Parts: sequence; structure tokens; C-alpha cells
Amino acid sequence: MVFEKIKGLIDAPFTPFSPNGDVDLTPIPAYARMLAKNGLRGVFVNGSSGEGYMLTSEERTRLAEAWRNALPECFKLIVHVGSCCLRESQRLASHAQSIEAWGIGAMAPPFPKISRIEELVCYCEEIASAAPRLPFYYYHIPAFNGAFLPMVDFLRAVEKRIPNFAGIKYTYESIYEYNQCRLYAGGKFDMLHGQDETLLPSLAMGGAQGGIGGTTNYNGRCLVGIIEAWQRGDLQEARRLQNYAQEVINVICRFRGNIVGGKRIMKLIGLNLGANRTPFLNITPEEEQRLKQELEQIDFFHQCNTF
Amino acid sequence: MVFEKIKGLIDAPFTPFSPNGDVDLTPIPAYARMLAKNGLRGVFVNGSSGEGYMLTSEERTRLAEAWRNALPECFKLIVHVGSCCLRESQRLASHAQSIEAWGIGAMAPPFPKISRIEELVCYCEEIASAAPRLPFYYYHIPAFNGAFLPMVDFLRAVEKRIPNFAGIKYTYESIYEYNQCRLYAGGKFDMLHGQDETLLPSLAMGGAQGGIGGTTNYNGRCLVGIIEAWQRGDLQEARRLQNYAQEVINVICRFRGNIVGGKRIMKLIGLNLGANRTPFLNITPEEEQRLKQELEQIDFFHQCNTF
Amino acid sequence: MVFEKIKGLIDAPFTPFSPNGDVDLTPIPAYARMLAKNGLRGVFVNGSSGEGYMLTSEERTRLAEAWRNALPECFKLIVHVGSCCLRESQRLASHAQSIEAWGIGAMAPPFPKISRIEELVCYCEEIASAAPRLPFYYYHIPAFNGAFLPMVDFLRAVEKRIPNFAGIKYTYESIYEYNQCRLYAGGKFDMLHGQDETLLPSLAMGGAQGGIGGTTNYNGRCLVGIIEAWQRGDLQEARRLQNYAQEVINVICRFRGNIVGGKRIMKLIGLNLGANRTPFLNITPEEEQRLKQELEQIDFFHQCNTF
Amino acid sequence: MVFEKIKGLIDAPFTPFSPNGDVDLTPIPAYARMLAKNGLRGVFVNGSSGEGYMLTSEERTRLAEAWRNALPECFKLIVHVGSCCLRESQRLASHAQSIEAWGIGAMAPPFPKISRIEELVCYCEEIASAAPRLPFYYYHIPAFNGAFLPMVDFLRAVEKRIPNFAGIKYTYESIYEYNQCRLYAGGKFDMLHGQDETLLPSLAMGGAQGGIGGTTNYNGRCLVGIIEAWQRGDLQEARRLQNYAQEVINVICRFRGNIVGGKRIMKLIGLNLGANRTPFLNITPEEEQRLKQELEQIDFFHQCNTF
Repeated sequence: MVFEKIKGLIDAPFTPFSPNGDVDLTPIPAYARMLAKNGLRGVFVNGSSGEGYMLTSEERTRLAEAWRNALPECFKLIVHVGSCCLRESQRLASHAQSIEAWGIGAMAPPFPKISRIEELVCYCEEIASAAPRLPFYYYHIPAFNGAFLPMVDFLRAVEKRIPNFAGIKYTYESIYEYNQCRLYAGGKFDMLHGQDETLLPSLAMGGAQGGIGGTTNYNGRCLVGIIEAWQRGDLQEARRLQNYAQEVINVICRFRGNIVGGKRIMKLIGLNLGANRTPFLNITPEEEQRLKQELEQIDFFHQCNTF
Repeated sequence: MVFEKIKGLIDAPFTPFSPNGDVDLTPIPAYARMLAKNGLRGVFVNGSSGEGYMLTSEERTRLAEAWRNALPECFKLIVHVGSCCLRESQRLASHAQSIEAWGIGAMAPPFPKISRIEELVCYCEEIASAAPRLPFYYYHIPAFNGAFLPMVDFLRAVEKRIPNFAGIKYTYESIYEYNQCRLYAGGKFDMLHGQDETLLPSLAMGGAQGGIGGTTNYNGRCLVGIIEAWQRGDLQEARRLQNYAQEVINVICRFRGNIVGGKRIMKLIGLNLGANRTPFLNITPEEEQRLKQELEQIDFFHQCNTF
Repeated sequence: MVFEKIKGLIDAPFTPFSPNGDVDLTPIPAYARMLAKNGLRGVFVNGSSGEGYMLTSEERTRLAEAWRNALPECFKLIVHVGSCCLRESQRLASHAQSIEAWGIGAMAPPFPKISRIEELVCYCEEIASAAPRLPFYYYHIPAFNGAFLPMVDFLRAVEKRIPNFAGIKYTYESIYEYNQCRLYAGGKFDMLHGQDETLLPSLAMGGAQGGIGGTTNYNGRCLVGIIEAWQRGDLQEARRLQNYAQEVINVICRFRGNIVGGKRIMKLIGLNLGANRTPFLNITPEEEQRLKQELEQIDFFHQCNTF
Repeated sequence: MVFEKIKGLIDAPFTPFSPNGDVDLTPIPAYARMLAKNGLRGVFVNGSSGEGYMLTSEERTRLAEAWRNALPECFKLIVHVGSCCLRESQRLASHAQSIEAWGIGAMAPPFPKISRIEELVCYCEEIASAAPRLPFYYYHIPAFNGAFLPMVDFLRAVEKRIPNFAGIKYTYESIYEYNQCRLYAGGKFDMLHGQDETLLPSLAMGGAQGGIGGTTNYNGRCLVGIIEAWQRGDLQEARRLQNYAQEVINVICRFRGNIVGGKRIMKLIGLNLGANRTPFLNITPEEEQRLKQELEQIDFFHQCNTF
């Protein structure tokens, strides 16, 4: 099967929670409109930014439906359906197809830890087969699940076995492996860049066209701007924006990263999505104050996403 | 709260699957009787040996119930309720209490990876609070989930916060950390030994009294024998049996470990429990043949568990 | 102190050994001429490619002298002086200054493993002070020595303490940390790119100007070509060359990497440098045959360095 | 060749340094007498406790000679000769034989990191061949050098190839692998226990008879006492002493371990051995004060080694 390749940046949204810890669907329409307004081309829901592994299957399907119903025009919905339990993942995949999501994705399970390519192929194969009409993306994020496998070898192994395999969301340091995957089989697979720190070098290296971002939730204008600047040949502006994106990332790294610190930024820019689920340690009020100050120091609130 | 400490060995059973991959409850009564007959004192269900993370919540509750209904006299049922989703874990904990399981346990989630003691305490606290009348065991198995935290510090942190915290199932190499935990607070906590390779040295080190085994499914007579030999002062026999236990473990290590290779041994001794769930790579017929031969070479079928 | 920044690529040469295993200085003049002819700007001797840690101090000083005496015009000599024994390193640093090497460098010792920035600063400080007139480069290659420390923090820590600290040879995956170091303190430090797989993205990211290569020993024309193409604005050619550099690297990765496989390529292009020292496992004659074939398949012998 | 097996505990001494950082040989006679008086059976010099990797070869030979000249009766001298440079190691091995040391040992080099058994065998083979009349011990301490190789396979590989291979100093967590090595080939190899935290369980597991200690420098009476208590069948006393040894180790772990914190204890018990070499961060006067207090709290100064 041949699928459309993604152009531009897809956002990995956070999951909104009510004060009592329940999933809160009410912010989603405004959230979707905001992302589209700031140049994002779709969402990858229930992934790591969305605390997908920490949601019940029922919460995951309700979230997917809420995003489906709130989609702006030409805005793609990709549903992360990975879990430790293949039967749940198949159910989620099938559900995603039934609600006409644009595509699905799955990371390797963190348990049992995958250490052989054949294990990963079987895992992806069974999930992809439950949504046979949708493109399936493998979400490579080995720092989270220990699946440090060579991705060119993986592409070679899935190529003939999974008809709806579309490509990889590549969230790992190795720009050259990313590029090798992009070149594989004449560029057959859609390699979604997945590390906001390295968007510019990936564009330079070999023509990445699409990606999935985590900091795009609040800093999407900047990241979209990198692609636009690069495409019009303005290298200085692309560098300036990439350096700025890094400054923002440096801040969130001091606040337990994007899932914790980044989610709290959403509140600071006007969209309160609530807390994180245990075992994440939430940002305290004092930390929130410091987070705000550090962002002000880099003039973030004039450059971030707007409503 | 003060709970009875476990004496002797609890078995971590495999989960039986039908040829179509569904959970198969029919072997459980025979399985339970066999374990009791060979000296085991209970079961720890839905743990790593039982592919607990790869089961749906509904499958997990049905399994717990089936074991509950099949329990031999004086045989303990401990239900592993850990998962990446705390709300599911709480539901499972509450269910375990409702069916009058003897206790519950949970390993740290493999995702998100836990790196701070406070995260682990919060995680355990919320689960334990959902089954407040049952003893809660933390299942320490960092090789599986990356939670390499110092356990004495963890005990110190939970001591005042989780009223029904009973102890730790300790599945890690450090015999001296295990012993330090055992000594902590005057021996207040129940430290369940959880590594079949080191039962004898743990008995010697400091009076381990109970443990949870994985190879006890098929080699329980041997492992129970180590404790009995030690208790009657027969060091030579205890060593002989520990060395034999190691020989069996050496075999399963050549067949992808206990979950895969060990589960297939069950079929060879007369209790076919079916395959493993993806992404585990099942034992092929050729491998099964070699597995059988290797076990015959160490005269396993005259020493293993009997029905 | 302010030092000239390096422009272009410095080569990390292999160490020639005689059949009896002694260091063989005779190939060095031809080696140096060949490197200069192919566009390299200097050598970084006794580093990891040169098996520096496996040489005696006396061999290291003789090698430095031999390169010093063979230097082509405008060709820089940087001497790696790192070792587990600071006193030896200081002696080597002092010797490098005495023979008028251009600069010195040192990686973190692999033993004891460095885990604190202050340890690394002390280590560098004592070495740098033994060659106070030469620029000192820290050679960051954590995969080899376990010193996974944040480099911006390290720059901050050395900035006021080591007067002749010049910069970092950065051999690690993180293009964005590399770039952060490059931007630090207004670009004060000389950040030498040290990973041949990522030369192009580093040029794009932020204006890397110099680097130290390992595959430049035989594929220097290609790597120098990447810089030249980038500088004249020919992105397509830069990409083509970077992709070709990767194809060559993919071959050597199948032959135990650059130190083992790459060194044998030198023989294949006409400069036999002998074997590797134990514990490296040398390329067998059969492997050499396959190596040659794999290189022919990518038409390497028409593109490699020439004499 | 068949060598005498070591019975009892060998000490790994610290290296004395003068205030100017030079090696100071003067304390060695008193040091040797003290160790013998407290029940130790020999020394393993220039190992990790002795900062052997941080000494010049000349310092290492002078230290070996000084210990040779100061040996109490029936006190063994084993010289650690491992280094990154095989030629230096061979020279050190040959020197050890020339001064009639009792034996030699070598750990795997930390650089290049050894990842194949054949590499390790070659490395040991070349060193052992330089002192062919002395027993050679491989010093297994993978946490320090990354050589995480299976030791039974290693024994199988060296068995026929290194005539003077005597055994392994085993400093790693896996008591069962240690025991498997001990059982290998009918107990042919001398397995020296090398982790002071687990002496008792190793005695219980299978009859360890000898070991090499690091905390024996100051806590040797306690550790020797464990063996004596075990041998006379006094398990309670053996446990009490092993628990006490752990309390001492817990203290030094708060002071950067044995090489740094333990060395400073020597000063506190009356034998000032000076500082550590860079990059170790030395104990500050304030830390020394706290170290002393923590030791007093466990009544250490009434139980430690005496002069």
C-alpha cells in the first residue's frame, strides 16, 4: 500500500485532566483550533506526551473520539495504540480505524523489553493488521522502552510483511541512522522526525519533510518557522529559530521535561490541562513560578503559540 | 498494620493460553493441586512469569478468580496488580480484596521509568490504598523496569506512609542489600527472596524465611528441599540442591529464560499451558526437542515436580 | 589566552606497527604527505585511532617526534596526551610543548571512571598546566570512557580555571549539545566536530568550521568535499558526499570499526600500517578479502585518498 | 601447572603518597606487619585500591619491590600488572617474576573496552606468558572496565591455552556465577572471592576458601573473623560480623567509596597514607570529621585493625 507522506509538523498533545484526575475532554476543541492556527498539521494522540500508557483503554478511545470530532480542516489524527497488551492495542487500532482516524502508531512495549528485531516485527504486524486500511507508524523512542534496535534492519524486516507499514516516528539521537532510513528503498518509507532539538540539521541532512513534535504544543510557531525558513533558503533565520527552540527546551529540562514541565507551560499560555498522573511528580506552585520567570527571561510569552 | 510473614516458597505461575490465544482457565485446579503437592505455599499470579502485563484487566481478574476458587488448603493467593495505568491497578487491587486474596503486589511500572523514590512511593501508595485490608508487597525487579533504586531508602520512605505495606519481593543480585532490608527496623518488613539462583546464600546470610520462585513451577521440590535441608542443618544437601537448581536454570537460559523456556517445560512434565503472547518468540518444535534432551541429560524428569 | 581556531579537517592517524609489533616510524613521512595532498590540515596523534592508550610513553613521544619532523607546510600537529596516569600525561604534554607541537588534547581517563565535572576539570587542569603555551582540547568521547557529562556545564567550569583551554573535540551523538557549546560565551571556544557521520548537519546547524576525523585517513577527499560543497552553497553535492561517507562507514562497521577495519583499509589503498595491538582482534585474510569486495561494490577505490 | 590455592584473605593495599604526590615507600614495612598481625595472608598490590592504573610503571615496580622486601613470614605478594598497554603489563609481569612475587593478576583493560571472550583470552595470554612460573589470576571487576563477560565461558576458553592460569579474583554481584566457576572442571581453578559484602553467603554457597579484600585494610579482623566463625560452625557470629562489615561499608559509601573514603580511614586508625591522585576528589577536612563521627557511632575504633 502507498500512503500520502506527511508534510509539516504533527503535534503530540497532552491529555487534559480534571482536578479529580479524570480525563477532561472539554478543552480539546479549543486545543485543536489553537494547534491548527499555529501551523500544526495534525495530532498524534495518546503517545508519551499524552501519558497514553497511563490511561485506561476506555479513556484512550474517548480521547481519540474527542479529537476526531474536533479536527480542524486538513488536520490529521494519528492515534498511538501501543501498550504492553497486544489485545488492547488491537482493540485500540480497530477503534481508530472505525472512527476514521488518519493513521495509527505504536512504540515498542517497555515490558517485556524487546531485544530482537523479529519480536518487534511480530508486535507491529499484529497491531497493524487490526487497522488494515490505515497507515501504521512505528514510534522509535528507545530511551523510553529500551528497544535499541537498528532501524534500517527493521525496515528491511517489515518491508515485505506489513502491507500498511508507512514509516517511523524517529525519536533518537542518531541523525545519520535517521537519514539512512530515509534513503532506504528509494525513500519508500515516511520518516517522521521526532526530536525538536534537531529539526534544522535533519532538514539539511536529507530533506526531512515531516515530523512529530512535543514542544510544538506551546512553541509550534517557532518550530514550524524553522521548516519555512529552511524551505525559502533563509538559513540564518532557521538557525535563529532552532537555537530559540533549544532555549525553550533547556528550560523544560530543568522542570522534569516536556510531559511534566511542558504540560504546565500550557497553563501559563492560557490552556490549563491539569496535572500529570502518578508516578509523575507534578510541578509545585513554587516551581511554576520559577518556570514562568525562566520563560519570561527568554521572552517566551511573546513568541509562543497563540489562541 | 502487622501481617503474617510468609514462610516457605510461593510460586509465580504461568498463564495458560488456548491454541487461539485466549486465556484458558481449565488447567488451573490441577495446576494448583500440583504446586501444593510439591511443597509450594501459594501463588503470586499475573506477575512477570504469568505475562501479567500482557493480559487485559478483565483477563487478570478472571485469572485471579480462577486461582481463588482452586486454592488448596493453607495456600496463599497473592495477586500482582501492577500496570502502567494506576487506575487499572487500583481496580485490580480492589478486586483482589473483594475476592479475598491473601495479598497483593506491584512492580514499578516500566513506563514511565521511575527514577526517584518519591515517585515509587506515590505509585505504591495509591495502589495499596485500594486494597487497604490486604498486605501490599513491592516487587523489586529493576532489570525489567529500570527502577534501580536503593531499597533501604525506599523502606524508610514508605514506612510511615503506607499502612498496609508488608515488604518486598526482592528479585535482584544484591544479597547484601536484601539483607540490609531484612534487618531494617528490627526486621519489621517481610523480605521475600525472589531469585532462585541464590536461595541458599540468602538463607545463610540472614535467615530469609520465604520467597517467590519462578522455576518452582517445575522444579519446586528441589527449591523447597533447599530450605528444608538448611533448616535441618544439612549444608551438603542444601548445596547439592542449589547446584542442581542452577543446572536447570542454565538450561532455561539457553531457551530465552523462564517465561518462554520454563513455560514449555510445563508441557514436558505434563501440563500444557500453551504458547507465550507476542512479542515473546515461542519455542519451536525443534527447540522443544533440544530442551527435552538437555533436561534429560541432567536427569530432570526424575526430580521435577510431580502430579 | 586566545588561540587560532582550527578550520578544516584534522586527521587522527593510525599508528604503524612492524610485523614484530614494534612501532614503525618509517611510513610516517609518506603518510603525512598523503594526508596533506588529500586536503587534511593536520594530525591528532596518539588518540583512539592511533591506539594511543596501548602505547608506552616512550613510543608516544617517538611518534609525536616523527610526525613533527614529517609535517607538511601549514599542517598542524596536535598530540593526544591523555592516559590513566596524570604524571605520564603531564610528561607527554611537556614533551609536546618542547617539540613545538601545535596543540595538545586529552580524553577523560577510562579508569577511574569520571562522574563529576570537578573531577574532569582537575584532570584537564593538571595536564594543561604542563604545556602552558599550547592550546588544550578536551576530547569528549563518552562512549569510550563513560564520562557522560554535560559539556556546557563543563565549559562553564573550566572557563576561568584553565588559561590555555581552547575547546572540545566533540565525538558524541548530540548535535544540539555540540551547538550549545559552540554558542557558549559568544562562541569563545573552538568546537571541533568529531563524528564523520554528521559533518553536514553540524555545518548546517551552526557553522562548525573544523573537525577531527577518523575515516579521513582513507576517505578524506570525500569529507573535505562536504565542507567545500557546503561553503560554496552546493547542498546537493554536500548531501551526496555525506551519504557516501556513510556508506564507507557502514562497511567498516561490519569489520569491527575504524581502528580495526579502517586501519586495514590503509593497506588496501597502498599504505600498510600493520596490525592492531591486543586485545583488538585483527582482520583475518578472509575478512580482508570481503572488506575489499565490499569497498569495491561502492566504488571506493576510485574515490578514496590518493598518494 | 598446578598451583597452591589461596586460603584466607589477601589484602589490596592502598598506595602511600607523600604530601608532594610522590609515592612514599616508608610506611610499607609497618603496613605489612599490621596486615599480618590482623590475620591477612598477603597483599595484592597496584590494584584498584592501590590506584595502580594511576601510577607510572616505574612507581609500580618500586612499590612491588618495597612490599617484597617487607613481607612478613608466610605472607603472599601478588602483583597486579594490568594496564591499557600490554607491553607495559608484560614488563611488569616479568619484573614481578624476577623479584619472586608469589603471583600476578590483571583486570581487563578499561580501554579499549573488551566485549569478546577471545579478546580477553589474548590479553591474559600475553601477560601470563611474561611471568610463566607464576600463577596468573584474572581480576574480574566489570563495573570498573565494562568487561561484562560470562566467566564460565571464559574459564572454558583459557583452560587449554594459558598454562599458568590459576583462577579469578571475582568482584561482581553474581554469587551463583561465582559458584559455577568454582565448580567448573572439578574445582580446578582458584576462585578468589572479591566482594567484602558477600563473604558469608559465598562461604555458605559452596566453600569459598580465599578472597581478596579492600576493606580488610582497616576492617580485616572482622572479615577474617567471618571465615573463622563459619569454619567453627558459629553461624550467628559469622552473621553478626558480616552485618558489621556492611555497616562499615555503608559508611565508606557515603565518602566516595573505599579508594577515597577507605584510604582516609587508614589515617584515622594511625597510618596516614596521604591523598588520592587526581581525578579522585580527596576527602576534605570537614568530611574527615564526619567520617570519624560516623565510624565512632558504630564503635569502629574498638573493632578495627590494630598495630
